[in-house]
Amino acid sequence: MAGLSTRHLLGIKDINRKDIELIFETADTFKSVINRPIKKVPSLRDVTIANIFFENSTRTRLSFELAERRLSADTLNFAASSSSVSKGETLVDTVNNILAMKVDMVVMRHPYAGAGVFLSKHVKAQIVNAGDGAHEHPTQALLDAFSIREKYGDVAGKKVVIVGDILHSRVALSNILCLKQLGAEVMVCGPTTLIPKYIASLGVKVEHNLIKALNWCDVANMLRIQLERQDIKYFPSLREYTMLFGLNKQILDNLDKEITIMHPGPINRGVEITSDVADSKQSIILDQVENGVAVRMAVLYLLAGQA
Amino acid sequence: MAGLSTRHLLGIKDINRKDIELIFETADTFKSVINRPIKKVPSLRDVTIANIFFENSTRTRLSFELAERRLSADTLNFAASSSSVSKGETLVDTVNNILAMKVDMVVMRHPYAGAGVFLSKHVKAQIVNAGDGAHEHPTQALLDAFSIREKYGDVAGKKVVIVGDILHSRVALSNILCLKQLGAEVMVCGPTTLIPKYIASLGVKVEHNLIKALNWCDVANMLRIQLERQDIKYFPSLREYTMLFGLNKQILDNLDKEITIMHPGPINRGVEITSDVADSKQSIILDQVENGVAVRMAVLYLLAGQA
Amino acid sequence: MAGLSTRHLLGIKDINRKDIELIFETADTFKSVINRPIKKVPSLRDVTIANIFFENSTRTRLSFELAERRLSADTLNFAASSSSVSKGETLVDTVNNILAMKVDMVVMRHPYAGAGVFLSKHVKAQIVNAGDGAHEHPTQALLDAFSIREKYGDVAGKKVVIVGDILHSRVALSNILCLKQLGAEVMVCGPTTLIPKYIASLGVKVEHNLIKALNWCDVANMLRIQLERQDIKYFPSLREYTMLFGLNKQILDNLDKEITIMHPGPINRGVEITSDVADSKQSIILDQVENGVAVRMAVLYLLAGQA
Repeated sequence: MAGLSTRHLLGIKDINRKDIELIFETADTFKSVINRPIKKVPSLRDVTIANIFFENSTRTRLSFELAERRLSADTLNFAASSSSVSKGETLVDTVNNILAMKVDMVVMRHPYAGAGVFLSKHVKAQIVNAGDGAHEHPTQALLDAFSIREKYGDVAGKKVVIVGDILHSRVALSNILCLKQLGAEVMVCGPTTLIPKYIASLGVKVEHNLIKALNWCDVANMLRIQLERQDIKYFPSLREYTMLFGLNKQILDNLDKEITIMHPGPINRGVEITSDVADSKQSIILDQVENGVAVRMAVLYLLAGQA
Repeated sequence: MAGLSTRHLLGIKDINRKDIELIFETADTFKSVINRPIKKVPSLRDVTIANIFFENSTRTRLSFELAERRLSADTLNFAASSSSVSKGETLVDTVNNILAMKVDMVVMRHPYAGAGVFLSKHVKAQIVNAGDGAHEHPTQALLDAFSIREKYGDVAGKKVVIVGDILHSRVALSNILCLKQLGAEVMVCGPTTLIPKYIASLGVKVEHNLIKALNWCDVANMLRIQLERQDIKYFPSLREYTMLFGLNKQILDNLDKEITIMHPGPINRGVEITSDVADSKQSIILDQVENGVAVRMAVLYLLAGQA
Repeated sequence: MAGLSTRHLLGIKDINRKDIELIFETADTFKSVINRPIKKVPSLRDVTIANIFFENSTRTRLSFELAERRLSADTLNFAASSSSVSKGETLVDTVNNILAMKVDMVVMRHPYAGAGVFLSKHVKAQIVNAGDGAHEHPTQALLDAFSIREKYGDVAGKKVVIVGDILHSRVALSNILCLKQLGAEVMVCGPTTLIPKYIASLGVKVEHNLIKALNWCDVANMLRIQLERQDIKYFPSLREYTMLFGLNKQILDNLDKEITIMHPGPINRGVEITSDVADSKQSIILDQVENGVAVRMAVLYLLAGQA
């Protein structure tokens, strides 16, 4: 069997279209597994995976942990405050210590961009990036694209708009890279202050008017406004943001066509989208969550084959 | 096999005497299992249970977790601060996300009364209430009644006094409902300020004198004073409470008969009961803890049969 | 098979040379197990072990947890703030409750010296001391001695210097007791203020000059300075400490002979030792971590045989 072109999953930047398609085909199989009464496969029995989260993330951690268990892997959970690992050497020490206990794979969330890449150069284990600062969140992008493919049969040719704080979002960057590789047309939409200038160089359209963006797209991925990131000074204010870029049912119903609504969660209901939009038939938000486990199973399974 | 009359365990209020007796008979079997060298049964292999605790509770969480493991279920632990779920929608979102990961059952502790009932109306999973505000704590009541049945052979006709802060206690309410259904006589005992007026309508006696209550009963269930609940203003003060309602060995030895002492734990030694009472032969406090695992195994096992 | 002379592992003080040798021989076997592709043995299937950590210790907890899983034991994790267990009775209550749930063994880290001994006298379970205040940390001493034995074939006759804050260190005390029992020569080295007066009575040499100590020894165990213990007032200051007792590559290379460097971790790089020393070929720091899992597997396995 052809495998992935990489030993790690550090970012969408490092994998190619064939890798993505292999992950999707493998995830198809695992999705059928987790919908059986017997949800487990023995594929990763005797593989030990450490989930090292230097940033809190209940939903991503639970999704990875479930993926690992359903592959019968042994899991170790390690939550650390980022303060204790402010120096790169200490990060290497922390992980090297865990690896000396014969851990095969590390799933890491870290507040600093590039932490996964740095680590992969300094330790022997295979690294899965579960989000590194404002850099990449590759499994989120994969599950998002997988959910679009599930909805429409194919990602190629689909028009996807990503709405929100593009500047600080690892989800936006990984999504753009993944969707472009699969042949989708991508647009970003948000206030000028939250869209970085380099974004056009990635081959995406930029639109500051939500209605125009929605009328253009097949799929709208409504990013979460990171209320908890106190280091981000939003301009416009949250109230202005919601007025200009918040999606409600009236806007949705007034569009020329029926579009699909996505959200990486957790939702600030009433901020990015209203409850009736989140719970509408056009929303595939819970499918994204379900697909997350299958896609992560596929990533871990395929990486283990490259060990 | 006849099953439970319910898909959820939200409160004792929602189950009938037959349900309780079925739980007890099932718990008898599981109690013999966990006292074997091989403590596990494969009953819930391939059932995934999420323990969602919006309030801290080491002992209840550990008891449920052990019950789940001994049934060979897969467990996911999720501890959340209640602050992040102050809105009902967000609670539904949180749980829906976990359910989208194909979780079969949710064991939930929540600071708000009715949270379990609310949830059961909005999500597909089976809900086990592990304590909701000052409302109900059904598995605690079941293990308490099971322990009385173990001690005396039967609950019917036994005289049980519940001593302490009846007003704020979910343990008291669930215990009263459970004991009454099983035919016990129930009395509550505590300062006037901590006994709600509606309590008489539940068919229980009210007594403000500890000695009289103890002389009446077969079993005294000494509730924990919730020192950590800073929103409760106790009147009388803690010192007065202990003087009037604290149970010590001298009081116990001066009674006309030998009564049985229970406590839901954790004990404030020297407040509700002194150490010599807690550790006396009349105390079945540790039996309650042991029975907790068996009773919770029975509840989870029987609910899974109703899935 | 001859077993250990004890039901608990409370301290090196309570075990004899034969016990230590039996642990080492058993750890040899387990070390070969965890380097196989299939890292698990079914030895402790149906043994439930509670890891009760009243003090935070990621690395020791992970090491024990991995050891338990590789023996196929069921593990329960319980992290408690020491504030809730400031009274001895409450500690007994906490553990008795866990034991009533049919837990077979307790691995405990506690901030107070003697907590393990106290507990072993009041509860029925087998206790493994995972560090009690400034008293003992026996598994650390065992893994340290095991690592020296692995490096040199034998511990007897080796010269080991322990450098750092001997006064507040449970690692130092357990190491001295273990190394002396195995026939090593032991020296402690540090500022006068951090070496207790009773230390000479243990039959160890005392040296205040790092270079002299290093020139004497075969192995230098560089203890961690506990930066986080704010109750310890260091004299000399940290800067002075590093100047006088910090080990860098230049010092190492200028010695007459090649010595082996150990560190119990986590390393304050640039304080006790510099990065080039920690990562040098003379360092066996990661071997210590790896051996920790094997030695802990041996301890748990042998204790279970004494149940």
